[in-house]
Amino acid sequence: MFEKKQIVAKSKDFDRWYTDVILKGELADYSAVRGCMIIRPYGYEIWEFIQNYLDKKFKQIGVKNAYFPLFIPASFLKKEKEHVTGFSPQLAVVTIGGGEKLAEPLIVRPTSETIMYDAYSRWIRSYRDLPLLLNLWNNVVRWEKRTYLFLRTTEFLWQEGHTAHATFEDADNFARKILEIYKKFDEEVLAIPVLVGKKSQSEKFPGASITYALESLMPDGKVIQMGTSHHLGDNFAKAFNIRYLDKEGKLQFVSQTSWAETTRVIGALVMSHGDDQGLILPPKIAPIQVVIIPITQTQATASFCDKLKKDLEEVGIRVKIDDRSEKTVGWKFNEWELKGVPIRIEVGEKELESKEATIVRRDNNEKIKIKNEKLQFKIKNLLEEIQQNLFEKMKKFGEENTHTIDSYEEFKKIMASKKGLIFAFWCENPECEKKIKEETKATTRVLPLDAKEEKGKCIYCGKDAIHRWYFGQAY
Amino acid sequence: MFEKKQIVAKSKDFDRWYTDVILKGELADYSAVRGCMIIRPYGYEIWEFIQNYLDKKFKQIGVKNAYFPLFIPASFLKKEKEHVTGFSPQLAVVTIGGGEKLAEPLIVRPTSETIMYDAYSRWIRSYRDLPLLLNLWNNVVRWEKRTYLFLRTTEFLWQEGHTAHATFEDADNFARKILEIYKKFDEEVLAIPVLVGKKSQSEKFPGASITYALESLMPDGKVIQMGTSHHLGDNFAKAFNIRYLDKEGKLQFVSQTSWAETTRVIGALVMSHGDDQGLILPPKIAPIQVVIIPITQTQATASFCDKLKKDLEEVGIRVKIDDRSEKTVGWKFNEWELKGVPIRIEVGEKELESKEATIVRRDNNEKIKIKNEKLQFKIKNLLEEIQQNLFEKMKKFGEENTHTIDSYEEFKKIMASKKGLIFAFWCENPECEKKIKEETKATTRVLPLDAKEEKGKCIYCGKDAIHRWYFGQAY
Repeated sequence: MFEKKQIVAKSKDFDRWYTDVILKGELADYSAVRGCMIIRPYGYEIWEFIQNYLDKKFKQIGVKNAYFPLFIPASFLKKEKEHVTGFSPQLAVVTIGGGEKLAEPLIVRPTSETIMYDAYSRWIRSYRDLPLLLNLWNNVVRWEKRTYLFLRTTEFLWQEGHTAHATFEDADNFARKILEIYKKFDEEVLAIPVLVGKKSQSEKFPGASITYALESLMPDGKVIQMGTSHHLGDNFAKAFNIRYLDKEGKLQFVSQTSWAETTRVIGALVMSHGDDQGLILPPKIAPIQVVIIPITQTQATASFCDKLKKDLEEVGIRVKIDDRSEKTVGWKFNEWELKGVPIRIEVGEKELESKEATIVRRDNNEKIKIKNEKLQFKIKNLLEEIQQNLFEKMKKFGEENTHTIDSYEEFKKIMASKKGLIFAFWCENPECEKKIKEETKATTRVLPLDAKEEKGKCIYCGKDAIHRWYFGQAY
Repeated sequence: MFEKKQIVAKSKDFDRWYTDVILKGELADYSAVRGCMIIRPYGYEIWEFIQNYLDKKFKQIGVKNAYFPLFIPASFLKKEKEHVTGFSPQLAVVTIGGGEKLAEPLIVRPTSETIMYDAYSRWIRSYRDLPLLLNLWNNVVRWEKRTYLFLRTTEFLWQEGHTAHATFEDADNFARKILEIYKKFDEEVLAIPVLVGKKSQSEKFPGASITYALESLMPDGKVIQMGTSHHLGDNFAKAFNIRYLDKEGKLQFVSQTSWAETTRVIGALVMSHGDDQGLILPPKIAPIQVVIIPITQTQATASFCDKLKKDLEEVGIRVKIDDRSEKTVGWKFNEWELKGVPIRIEVGEKELESKEATIVRRDNNEKIKIKNEKLQFKIKNLLEEIQQNLFEKMKKFGEENTHTIDSYEEFKKIMASKKGLIFAFWCENPECEKKIKEETKATTRVLPLDAKEEKGKCIYCGKDAIHRWYFGQAY
């Protein structure tokens, strides 16, 4: 009980460090079901912050929440050809219900396009019914062979937004609007810088016309997809016959979008900011922003801690006092470092006498003394500074590890040492993309949203290319 | 498009009225999957209010949210004998995953006791780990032959709380604390009066020692279970070996509780308050509390409506202006009545001149004129009055239809005409309970929580009985 929890160093074994931090930091746990994880309260609180933030932003642009069934008739999934081909290998299938074999097997939703758009085809009649903007907060299941806590699990939590619009342009604008919300969230709340762009044909969502995505380079040199926003065009509208009468009285197919961010981003959060001591949480997403630890267990320190807590809470800071008598001070330091609490305040006799607080920043381990006067505001500023610092650190890391290159030899070398992102010309021929993946494990990540046409040569085949694409090894 | 939505009268055909109100009021819709429903935005908003309210109350008493897997290994369910017997007929079973037949079938959770308590047995070591207080907001599946929107569906949404305590008393206190939260919520927010008490042995949750429940009499004379809080004793602790070292260093089994309230209460909400015109929502749970309808489409009325909306929002009222030009005023009246908005404000030339607002209460259809001065506060008070009135109405209905009787002939007569609750002596022999159910369809609902011992004769067999129980026909 008094033993400190040990974790392996991040620099020594990244994969084990990641698992250690999640299990010992009590974000999540393995379950008895292969590939399915338990999200423990500390991890779930982070998910609740994510939900609250995004939910508010979605509602601000007119999106409403709803709920659709967990089960999808197998026949539905088959209506959109690319969609069923993409998801078939990953399905969990219910074949028995109420003790009887089902006439038609039910798919546990891997995503809800098909079950939702069946309803959309009944609900949408006129241009006045558009846009239809719905979002679901739910669980989905995609069977995975190799699983990894948060990053790839058979079941995961997410939000999935599904909209229908009158025109292709309306849908495109909306898909991009969502992208903006995601980018702001990833960067300003999670402190994770993202690249925003379009996916290649082979990497897009099965059934989409355009897939927009947000990608981020992780400290181990791999690239994670933080979120996606798909422009579905009229692919599903045609498969599910979703049509509306326009102002001229003509029947038109709707244009649609779907978009999602998942519990996976918690994995990215862990990887991005953590260090050898464990998790480092950006203040905006930290369930506990400040932990106060009494160094001596006296009445004087206890009342000082209580007063301090109240002061901090007054300015909206989330605070915890750890005054457990059965744990040593050292154990507590270790524990809250492991759990990534942004600021620790130590309160002992010295602090009471000197009228200075002893503060330790989790992001850079700096120990600082701050005069007690207006301490709450100083702490509030410090939290903002930490938030900014974490973002800048990751931004710098991303820039330093993004290589604009024109030689395939160099490409291979960089990928062999798992060192980050490559920005290179590609002719947009899927054959070159496939070969590159086979030879280097790198896939196209995105074409930047604001890319302008240039003149270049494909890094693989040397033929004419008009855009540089980001390449990297995906999770 | 201009046709009013027609619903059957509540008094004429209760069942059809109920379905009409839900479908045409756009609370929910049928889905392509048998027994699974779609919760539409207007219904889901009500669920969000329920979630927000309960979530806050749970957190106030130290409960934390978490997430556990959707799938449960079949072997887990079998560990508690009563539990598996109770749920077996209702299971949905996944037998195929990722294209392959599974070695062990996975059950789609009907409830999460077994998957959670497996983890509890790993997490709980010492008395310092207790109490462990977790709650999940999730979806569960129980295969149903006959389904009914909100009231009985194969998949439904709920919260399920699961706690572990050092002693039987601690667990009992906690189970009752939850009961108090539910009662307050049902009565003060949903405006549905409830009877609180213990279930009989045959009606308790499979695996529980004691099941506490909240029951309410609906207008059609049937009784609905609004929520349950189970004292599980050490039944699951023994099945899953959940033990802790007490202060003396001895290994002890924990005592546990589980408790739930589901989307079913939305069904009770519809049934309780609605009338021939449709839904009536208690203000505290209404997504829209006041709808403002401009009678004339002039600049003057439009600005008046905007100003009024702002004023009302200032005091925390949820307001909508329905200024659609393509709908008639009559259509709008009908639509918002159907959707149960508590207050309608009509704004025309007359209202602008007279400086009086024309207000229609949804609960009693009263049309009243109120001077514009301090209108926002008057409306706020009116909302409270409506909330109270709806509760009082249902309370009176419950009292008038609860029959304290001592004759089985009367019992049968009352049940044959589906007229409410019976309060009668029962000897607590399951045989009598079974016979009563066979002969009258009535089951024991609860023994009141505060019941004192009395002397009486069982209404069925005439033998000695010490308590009156509530009997009614369940949903």
